[in-house]
Amino acid sequence: MNEVLKAIAERNSCRDFSPEPLTKEQIEILVKAALAAPSAMNLQPWYITVVTDKSFIEAFDAEIMEFVKKDENWYKTMQERGGKALYDAPCMIFIAKNETNYATHDCGIVSQNIALAAHAMGLGNVICGMARIPFEGAKGAEFTKQLQFPEGYTFGMSVLVGKANKGKTPHELDFNKVSYV
Amino acid sequence: MNEVLKAIAERNSCRDFSPEPLTKEQIEILVKAALAAPSAMNLQPWYITVVTDKSFIEAFDAEIMEFVKKDENWYKTMQERGGKALYDAPCMIFIAKNETNYATHDCGIVSQNIALAAHAMGLGNVICGMARIPFEGAKGAEFTKQLQFPEGYTFGMSVLVGKANKGKTPHELDFNKVSYV
Repeated sequence: MNEVLKAIAERNSCRDFSPEPLTKEQIEILVKAALAAPSAMNLQPWYITVVTDKSFIEAFDAEIMEFVKKDENWYKTMQERGGKALYDAPCMIFIAKNETNYATHDCGIVSQNIALAAHAMGLGNVICGMARIPFEGAKGAEFTKQLQFPEGYTFGMSVLVGKANKGKTPHELDFNKVSYV
Repeated sequence: MNEVLKAIAERNSCRDFSPEPLTKEQIEILVKAALAAPSAMNLQPWYITVVTDKSFIEAFDAEIMEFVKKDENWYKTMQERGGKALYDAPCMIFIAKNETNYATHDCGIVSQNIALAAHAMGLGNVICGMARIPFEGAKGAEFTKQLQFPEGYTFGMSVLVGKANKGKTPHELDFNKVSYV
């Protein structure tokens, strides 16, 4: 099977990372994949921040867990997954977006490019929307500054990447969601 | 170079298709790539319609061009590209989305999966946002019906796929859009 089709089919969301750091070369490859994303009118409405600072990731994780704690069922689910919102991932890539029309859509493209590139290198990955939570809290402005989002850019998406302690089975394909004309 | 990373780096937006139809197998592969997209909480907030009906694509193209005509510069650009909004693509894949929070983002993931799968099969492709235009016009409801979007689903994105008469150079990577923490 074609390697690209295989990666698309087999990529899965990792929720249990080894804390072993990525190499500089791996990070460079992820960044290049992100920046290669097509975008509406080639506006590239994104800004990428690669975080490998463990103390940042831990502080960020703690903010998410504080929020999750307010919802008993959600908190229980997260505890079953190891009690960490970011699953000990050694690398967290933020995709900030500007206010142009297709920015949200284009962030989706960027996040999948990163995820597929990670998978192609044998790394676990998960596209993580929960990372929006700390930006909506009291420390939101501080995190935005630390992440160096340019003026007018806000959180779009994040992708966690690292060696997977264990993988998952990809979701089943739902062919009921398709028509032919 | 790893085939997946190569596809991400080399995929480019095609604006000149051969009208030669896709094979059933090629279409099946594109559909599988679309459905394999990850989504927030695995909600799969999409509906895929694969259009190979030439008369539909031509009617849809004509609607876009009617709109484009209102803007002189835009119309000129489109004329220079061959005068067709859909570039004679033999296959047009619509991604409709529902109203859940991450649906727009997840449509981005789906569109890139389709684009990369097309590229992996040696097919030209372009993610085409202009396809939103006919849905906003007088025939919008009719097109929505013909495309069999389920209740509550609206246009999210489209991807054009076909044999490329000519390709393009991918955009340059803008490393000014990256920080490291």
